[in-house]
Amino acid sequence: MSKHIVVIGAVALGPKAACRARRLDPEAKVTMIDKSGVISYGGCGIPYFVSGDVADVSQLTTTSFHMVRDAQFFKDTKGVDVLTRTEAMSIDRKQKTVRIRRLESGLEEELPYDKLLIATGAAPRTLHISGDDLPGAHYVGNLEDAEAIKAAVSKGGISRAVIVGAGFIGLEMAEALADMWDVETTVVEIADQALPRMVSPALAAMARRHMEEKGVSFRFGASVSRIEGDGRVERVMVGEEILAADMIILAAGVVPQSGLAREAGLDVSARGGIIVDAAMRTSDPDIYAGGDCVEIRHLATGEPFYLPLGSMANRQGRVIGTNLVGPEGNEASFDGAVGSFAVKLFERTAAGAGLTLDSARQAGFDAVSVLLFQLDRAHFFPDKALLAMEMTVDRKSRKVLGFQGFGAAGDALVGRVGAVAALMCKHGVVEDVCQLEYPYSPPYSSAMDVVNNVGNLADNVLAGLNEGVGPLEFMRLWEQREAGECVFLDCRESANAEGMLARHPNAWKNIPQGRILERLDDIPRDKPLILICNTGGRSFEAMISLKGKGFDKVMNLHGGMAGLTFCGWEESLAGATVLRLA
Amino acid sequence: MSKHIVVIGAVALGPKAACRARRLDPEAKVTMIDKSGVISYGGCGIPYFVSGDVADVSQLTTTSFHMVRDAQFFKDTKGVDVLTRTEAMSIDRKQKTVRIRRLESGLEEELPYDKLLIATGAAPRTLHISGDDLPGAHYVGNLEDAEAIKAAVSKGGISRAVIVGAGFIGLEMAEALADMWDVETTVVEIADQALPRMVSPALAAMARRHMEEKGVSFRFGASVSRIEGDGRVERVMVGEEILAADMIILAAGVVPQSGLAREAGLDVSARGGIIVDAAMRTSDPDIYAGGDCVEIRHLATGEPFYLPLGSMANRQGRVIGTNLVGPEGNEASFDGAVGSFAVKLFERTAAGAGLTLDSARQAGFDAVSVLLFQLDRAHFFPDKALLAMEMTVDRKSRKVLGFQGFGAAGDALVGRVGAVAALMCKHGVVEDVCQLEYPYSPPYSSAMDVVNNVGNLADNVLAGLNEGVGPLEFMRLWEQREAGECVFLDCRESANAEGMLARHPNAWKNIPQGRILERLDDIPRDKPLILICNTGGRSFEAMISLKGKGFDKVMNLHGGMAGLTFCGWEESLAGATVLRLA
Repeated sequence: MSKHIVVIGAVALGPKAACRARRLDPEAKVTMIDKSGVISYGGCGIPYFVSGDVADVSQLTTTSFHMVRDAQFFKDTKGVDVLTRTEAMSIDRKQKTVRIRRLESGLEEELPYDKLLIATGAAPRTLHISGDDLPGAHYVGNLEDAEAIKAAVSKGGISRAVIVGAGFIGLEMAEALADMWDVETTVVEIADQALPRMVSPALAAMARRHMEEKGVSFRFGASVSRIEGDGRVERVMVGEEILAADMIILAAGVVPQSGLAREAGLDVSARGGIIVDAAMRTSDPDIYAGGDCVEIRHLATGEPFYLPLGSMANRQGRVIGTNLVGPEGNEASFDGAVGSFAVKLFERTAAGAGLTLDSARQAGFDAVSVLLFQLDRAHFFPDKALLAMEMTVDRKSRKVLGFQGFGAAGDALVGRVGAVAALMCKHGVVEDVCQLEYPYSPPYSSAMDVVNNVGNLADNVLAGLNEGVGPLEFMRLWEQREAGECVFLDCRESANAEGMLARHPNAWKNIPQGRILERLDDIPRDKPLILICNTGGRSFEAMISLKGKGFDKVMNLHGGMAGLTFCGWEESLAGATVLRLA
Repeated sequence: MSKHIVVIGAVALGPKAACRARRLDPEAKVTMIDKSGVISYGGCGIPYFVSGDVADVSQLTTTSFHMVRDAQFFKDTKGVDVLTRTEAMSIDRKQKTVRIRRLESGLEEELPYDKLLIATGAAPRTLHISGDDLPGAHYVGNLEDAEAIKAAVSKGGISRAVIVGAGFIGLEMAEALADMWDVETTVVEIADQALPRMVSPALAAMARRHMEEKGVSFRFGASVSRIEGDGRVERVMVGEEILAADMIILAAGVVPQSGLAREAGLDVSARGGIIVDAAMRTSDPDIYAGGDCVEIRHLATGEPFYLPLGSMANRQGRVIGTNLVGPEGNEASFDGAVGSFAVKLFERTAAGAGLTLDSARQAGFDAVSVLLFQLDRAHFFPDKALLAMEMTVDRKSRKVLGFQGFGAAGDALVGRVGAVAALMCKHGVVEDVCQLEYPYSPPYSSAMDVVNNVGNLADNVLAGLNEGVGPLEFMRLWEQREAGECVFLDCRESANAEGMLARHPNAWKNIPQGRILERLDDIPRDKPLILICNTGGRSFEAMISLKGKGFDKVMNLHGGMAGLTFCGWEESLAGATVLRLA
């Protein structure tokens, strides 16, 4: 008798696993159920639908050859039965049945299974803010939400919006509203930076600066206490501040939908993720789970973590599909992930994988991070862009723990992150990044590519050759310049240093790198020296020279002036404004 | 007493190693010599200087901050002494001296060394063709050659050119001449395809087709027997054919410059590459060598190979710089390479790493390759492009042996190749590609990214689930369609199949994939079935259905119609022209 596989949830992971199982066992009967009438859609495309990049919502529910991925499609082309508008009420693990309810008729029935897959996904984190039920307040959970938001902005009645959350969805929605619809948009984030836990404060400052230039405002370390309005959203209270707003989008992350699993007695973590093994099996050997409702293993820390991404769902789905029909003892496995990501922010991109310095230290590593700026291609080639890249490594094992970047060349950045992510999954060390064979040709990369130089910089830092400060530590030292505790020595040619010398004749010194050895007597030996150049290369040469002459308290500004500029800290550097971090 | 390091050769590897050694040991005396007066230039930029992308030759000899990398620069900023216009005549390994000759004065002297680095690079392969000394015949070896070529084309006297060699330099020069200067350009290649040994015949056909559309002509399996003209190049004989030409560029590869090493008794391979160990040390422990004059280890085959690339030179240079001054027994190492590359061809890019199917089989692997077409980003996102990607794997170990691609999205392609190259260096297997964490976001990648799907396809092929033919094998079968030995079954919707059905009513059949199971009686069981769709996905579903119903001779056209179109074989498919492979 053929095996009956039941799949609960028909977006991303569910369909992937269902179709894979059917391909491997064309005799298997596969039934997929979903509460919604709209299934197998590209939820990650929602911000691009709102922005207008994706013109019609149907583009998110069709294949690349314009076939609608509805129940009939799955029946005809994949041999998978789909019950839409059908909710899974409970699982009877002894009887191996799922109690389902047809939402339109209200009828309930028992669906027997041999193997069951829970692919219930995640839901937006509800914030329980007074007024979040007013018209004009939106969560971003599904296509209906997306259509409601787009309908509202495209009617033209929305001139000011507040977005809660500076994670991927929050920032993507901010771009969508501000760029296409010219909505005055303010992002409110409880953490003190954009993309918290995903990138360092310096990279977050770069993202913030670019988005502010594009008209988006930010409130960090802040939260919305109340939403008010007469019959619809009119005002949002952020601490003491009142923001006028016609719309508020609540995008403070998502939570795994694991209630059904928990009620069935399956193991669920304290954070709410269903616990699965490497075969993506739950604590019941006949029940699998994957995607946004499970926890997986972080390959850098070895600890469980939660990574709700469409790509995870697809790749886990294939593994589960294999295991739903495959022989026991010969399972496909999903070992975990390093959490690679990319996010488009107007004309810039942030991307990364693995841990930041802070998260690495929290995980117990003796970690160090380095920041490098370099062009994405040969410096003599036209249309190039500076990329900022940061890598966090473990001092002792030299293992790469994290790698993040920011810049205008999106595909180029994503490519480097993808390559380092591949290395991290194979427990790569600093030397592997130094030798990474990113394909070389002047239109695409440098002979010593930016990614290799990140490895070289980390190698030099670990060897004690290039002790440095990042843009953030530098600005903290600079803010205290009146105390006179360090010397800021600009190693660029004099013409480049003129502006700073004029504004800060006492605090700022300039000796071009090539003249350092002739002018050792002009350099104080009793105070820490902070060396500065354009991106940190010439100041590194200066540092070598000075250390060779017995200067022992020398630090290099990693990323140089380029880093400070990317972070938007030129004005604070000039002394015109007080430093605004994050 | 400080160590004296002598470096022979001041382009790419030499300067990198010299500067690195000085940074690690600021007391070391480093002397670099070069025959030329122009040093440390970006030779890989020559085609872009000829094309005009790089406006001025000085851009190839300056840093990204516009400092000229001349002898004074190395003295001032790096502490390295440079003797230009100085030739190394011989090495006395007993005395540890290099006999040098100052080319301007003719004076000779002995330069003592503690450690010596041979970085003599490569020279263009000379072809000994009668007439190759005529004005208008050029090798592409250095900046002087580049300036001569650009001077000739920019004067406007060149309307037709022949290029010998369809490798990187040959194709880049063809683009430079045809695109910017509108020169009627013919590439003559002795092998039967473009980029021989770098990509498969199918990917080579895609490159050829695009370049032909841009006006470049090709002669494959052909060589130049004579160059003729009255005082300058006027005609080029290619077999029986006479090509009128005002210029001929000889770009048939490069050969390592290892004469000095051989004469000094160092181990040199039969192919002429200096033999070095993982520390980049020659058979004399005090002499290192690297870059275009050495052989390195191929990480897929374990065998020595020759990889003259600027990126290799830079990365090896850093390793050598470390070892020139470092303690013995604690050397930095260069383990080898998988030979990643990228080349821009007008509006397309070819890139790859490792072996092709043919080279893998020659190296003794039981190898199989797969070809996949998929968009570089989410199918609903605008401005996307189809990428062709081919992967070769070892059947038994499942190790990835090679990965190459072609498409319009250059940075996106290079990124995927870089990620797989990183995996190959860590002995990655098919599963690692299936799970590769290329950062996901709709503007940059797909939830199941093209690179993951290449892994999935290889997995399915190895499992016997998706036996296929590539575009080339398909066309060979199609050419024999009159014999009636196979059935060509188009699984697309009927509207897509109409054209082929009208032209080939006997040979071409059409049953849309979703209708296959209803129409099993219409499908012959006695002949091999070749299934066809747009890119190979729906035909895979059809294959699964048919195999489930006992059809056992079924093959899927990998890459589908897209592959045939990319290769430029639509006309042959339509029956209008005889198939022209490669």
